[in-house]
Amino acid sequence: MCQLLGMNSRLPASLTLSFTGFSQRGGCTDHHADGWGIAFFESEGNLPGKAARYFVDKESASTSAIAQMLRSYPIKSHNVVAHVRKATVGAVTLENCHPFVRELWGRYWFFAHNGDLKEFNPPLHGSFRPVGSTDSEQAFCWLLQELNKSHATVPSVQELTHTLAELVPQISQHGTFNFLLSNGQALWAHASTKLTYVQRQHPFCKVQLKDEDVTVDLSELNGPDDRLVIVVTEPLTTNETWVPMENGELLAFVDGEPVARALCKATLTPVAAAAAAQREKEEAAKAAALAACCTSAA
Amino acid sequence: MCQLLGMNSRLPASLTLSFTGFSQRGGCTDHHADGWGIAFFESEGNLPGKAARYFVDKESASTSAIAQMLRSYPIKSHNVVAHVRKATVGAVTLENCHPFVRELWGRYWFFAHNGDLKEFNPPLHGSFRPVGSTDSEQAFCWLLQELNKSHATVPSVQELTHTLAELVPQISQHGTFNFLLSNGQALWAHASTKLTYVQRQHPFCKVQLKDEDVTVDLSELNGPDDRLVIVVTEPLTTNETWVPMENGELLAFVDGEPVARALCKATLTPVAAAAAAQREKEEAAKAAALAACCTSAA
Repeated sequence: MCQLLGMNSRLPASLTLSFTGFSQRGGCTDHHADGWGIAFFESEGNLPGKAARYFVDKESASTSAIAQMLRSYPIKSHNVVAHVRKATVGAVTLENCHPFVRELWGRYWFFAHNGDLKEFNPPLHGSFRPVGSTDSEQAFCWLLQELNKSHATVPSVQELTHTLAELVPQISQHGTFNFLLSNGQALWAHASTKLTYVQRQHPFCKVQLKDEDVTVDLSELNGPDDRLVIVVTEPLTTNETWVPMENGELLAFVDGEPVARALCKATLTPVAAAAAAQREKEEAAKAAALAACCTSAA
Repeated sequence: MCQLLGMNSRLPASLTLSFTGFSQRGGCTDHHADGWGIAFFESEGNLPGKAARYFVDKESASTSAIAQMLRSYPIKSHNVVAHVRKATVGAVTLENCHPFVRELWGRYWFFAHNGDLKEFNPPLHGSFRPVGSTDSEQAFCWLLQELNKSHATVPSVQELTHTLAELVPQISQHGTFNFLLSNGQALWAHASTKLTYVQRQHPFCKVQLKDEDVTVDLSELNGPDDRLVIVVTEPLTTNETWVPMENGELLAFVDGEPVARALCKATLTPVAAAAAAQREKEEAAKAAALAACCTSAA
């Protein structure tokens, strides 16, 4: 399974801390070694920027030279979408690495997806076509095509959330569709099975990273006006209150807090339902094997 | 004035040499210190890849951390478009750094422009809109919009050259329109005033870099099957045969050689003609001042 990381912040926030822990999942503390990517809007002074920066690599994020540069580079952003990929559909090529980037209404859009879709072959008659072979990029192209039909220019965050809520079930009925989307004005997160978020604001505490044996004092990195939200597949820290998103929940974050919410209820297609049942069975078997292993080791 | 660098190669070619000399123009040996960018299709084995890599920076290419990484990173590509920018129109922001990237027909397209356009405000009713404020990005969006109208999917290089030759004069009548364009299958170059190219193939010689006091033996870097073309605003070496492109000449390069050619003749609009006359006057005055300075110094 892939892992998603999103950030939305009121003030320009450094990526270094979150990306350091997250990128460890690309090969060191997890088995996600099939490519990774990060896309963000570089802040312009204290304002969210429109310019897209976009780095992907096929090499594991824990060893990649580009990831290494990013961990030491003083990047500041209001909106970030990152992804570590475990290939399930599509060959492991650079063009299949998330996040994907397109322009719509004079703004760049980033999209990263976790999950897989069964028999999802939407008609793509518009100006957005996949370059790679993933169901994820296909879903992104279809979303932009349909958004483009619904609005003539960038709508408000509330309006866009409303339109997304109408579109998402048409995709999520085909399988697991956890995703992050950003246009630099907001970060949208949709949970089909697994996404969780934490809000950080004054007073900031010391956090214990889950992927490294490190404690970080957030009060040293943030001021009283800072406020940000981190959305991830699995919590990055062990001592913060991570809020699991509901199945079908769509949230829009602006200025480091949720500003719009919708529920996207979908009934799985028979093929998608069968795949979900199979996956649950496999996960239960894996958990049972792990429990047995721990018991015998104790 | 900005500087363009393009490369088209039969086999995957390293960027290091050309980019090293070219990036010196971002602040060290020239006054182009207002941002730079490079976009390329990373080769997949010996084949031209479809995946886009794209690095831009507002910081001078001679000092930028990203440029530093690129100079030491073993990138191989069949098609490269790079740009060092001296802002003439539009604020110096990251979203105004060339090359620009868009997707059309399931392929990424890179575009970089040198020159400036007067009163060019085309109707952009399609799915390509500028994110920044440059006339260059506007021209790129209009080109893609019109290409999209002319073809339903990626046409042959010859067909695309033909369509471009019909479209280009509609832009170049508005001013200086030297540009590089690539979709990973070919590199297109159009000279409005200033572009020059060199073809390198077996037997490879020693070249003397113009921007650094360095001689490089190309036969040590290339094999007998290598063949590539470098297109630039100003020659990168002092001892190779650089071919200046004609005014209005459009060339398509594939496998390291020109495969299609067209002449794009445009009559400048009165405003563009006046600007061109003014520029020529200024350049003549600058040359005269330089000559006087050299004489008095001698």
